[in-house]
Amino acid sequence: MALPNAVKIVEVGPRDGLQNEKEFVATATKIELVNRLSRAGFPNIEAASFVSPKWVPQMADGAEVMHGIERRAGAIYSVLTPNMRGFEGALAARADEIVIFGAASEAFSQKNINCSIAESIERFAPVAQAAKAHGVRIRGSVSCSLGCPYQGDVPVASVVDVVERFAALGCDEIDIADTIGVGTAKRVHDVFAAVTKVFPRERLSGHFHDTYGQALANIYAALEEGVAIFHASVAGLGGCPYAKGATGNVATEDVLYLMNGLGIHTGIDLDQVVAAGDFISQAIGRPNVSRAGKALLAKAQNAAACA
Amino acid sequence: MALPNAVKIVEVGPRDGLQNEKEFVATATKIELVNRLSRAGFPNIEAASFVSPKWVPQMADGAEVMHGIERRAGAIYSVLTPNMRGFEGALAARADEIVIFGAASEAFSQKNINCSIAESIERFAPVAQAAKAHGVRIRGSVSCSLGCPYQGDVPVASVVDVVERFAALGCDEIDIADTIGVGTAKRVHDVFAAVTKVFPRERLSGHFHDTYGQALANIYAALEEGVAIFHASVAGLGGCPYAKGATGNVATEDVLYLMNGLGIHTGIDLDQVVAAGDFISQAIGRPNVSRAGKALLAKAQNAAACA
Repeated sequence: MALPNAVKIVEVGPRDGLQNEKEFVATATKIELVNRLSRAGFPNIEAASFVSPKWVPQMADGAEVMHGIERRAGAIYSVLTPNMRGFEGALAARADEIVIFGAASEAFSQKNINCSIAESIERFAPVAQAAKAHGVRIRGSVSCSLGCPYQGDVPVASVVDVVERFAALGCDEIDIADTIGVGTAKRVHDVFAAVTKVFPRERLSGHFHDTYGQALANIYAALEEGVAIFHASVAGLGGCPYAKGATGNVATEDVLYLMNGLGIHTGIDLDQVVAAGDFISQAIGRPNVSRAGKALLAKAQNAAACA
Repeated sequence: MALPNAVKIVEVGPRDGLQNEKEFVATATKIELVNRLSRAGFPNIEAASFVSPKWVPQMADGAEVMHGIERRAGAIYSVLTPNMRGFEGALAARADEIVIFGAASEAFSQKNINCSIAESIERFAPVAQAAKAHGVRIRGSVSCSLGCPYQGDVPVASVVDVVERFAALGCDEIDIADTIGVGTAKRVHDVFAAVTKVFPRERLSGHFHDTYGQALANIYAALEEGVAIFHASVAGLGGCPYAKGATGNVATEDVLYLMNGLGIHTGIDLDQVVAAGDFISQAIGRPNVSRAGKALLAKAQNAAACA
């Protein structure tokens, strides 16, 4: 299959990336980050979460963030909603898309939310109905699609099953997430070959973590399967709760560098993303773990030093 | 094309990786590193360099290293030799393979060694003849094959031309090196599709740097071209002199994790390589930049903490 001519890159740093930061990130910093990413041209930004502040205190200011950001015309601002209460917050905050989630691993589901996969997704039915009624887009996120910290291997059939359940709830888009970054390229081929049989390829996305350094190879394999939506986190924000000190989400700069090299259109300005990655890394005092980001920043500094 | 069933991983950390370290690495540490890598099962280790200590003081102890290491039966221990003097040192040290080199970029060749590509390779003719006469294997390394810090793009035809010149000198193996890590997967496909027309695929290797995070995707693309020899550096030893602070050689652990996931045989024990990466990173006080290495070390520490 020929690679896509254009892809949609969903920037998840402000939510998925920042949510694991221990020290609270100032609301103004979060807003500034989203604004910088909007100006860089992202068509879709996962901007906030409407979960209980008891669960994720870092995301307690979701409403303020959504209220404070400048919205680029046509761009989609997504928020995570675990339940109806979260959905009401999302609606009040004028979110364009809500994100609901389920694991492809039974062990993960039991351990994390103490119920079966099927039950956990069924619980989202009222949220999905409400979103439909209000014309809000729905994305379903299938975590542990390529492996699980508890059960190890995850059968392809389990991923297909969750995708079908999300499809039945009316999801507009479904992402196949390698939550712990253990997947490799062959598995990516196998999983996408299977899920594209039950859900339209053009509405499937790949959410890869770089914990084992595999994310770019996995994205390349997914491109070969015709996948044209990818998640990424600026400066590689986010870690891996199952391997402390290891990296998490694939860095947006690395993904954009790949797409630019392949001649695949993204509509996003890499230099502005590199600057946004530098901004947030400095603001929260965290090393920038994007390899392309670091290389491009080093090049710019060398050039400045020689000028 | 189906991916290869088995690949040869050439560990280059002890030479290519360590040569850029500013502080001198003790000879005993270098020997211990090579020994650990030998025990992990590498079929080929780039162990030392016989260049003038004025150029590369870090590699001044090449003879001692080659003398001190334990050699695993059947494994190939390679050394870099820039000239006849280097070759004599290599021969005295019983190197199994010498490495000669040339750039695919005219600008790089002129700037670095002040002569044309053609001239630079022609200068190796006596070294190659001597190696043949003594039954020592020869590898030719084509640097800047996917891009150059001075001229930017490097035409595929230039890479093909250097490969042909190395072939004419009798090289047993030729590596296509992305010295500054700027290449992406499409370029990898194009270059290998071209060079495999003039040199046997099974004797071509891929030497990728991870400066822009592209190495694993590039290796995957090369596997799709049937390439079955790859260079890698344990713990990601080595940097990029053209982008200070950026990463250099792809980390061996990440490459092995990919191959294991693809079911491609390497004959190398990943756990022992992770331990060797931890050993050398601690010994020289440098962060381990292998993502798989860090994740596996973190997992092992978590497991130990819970035991």
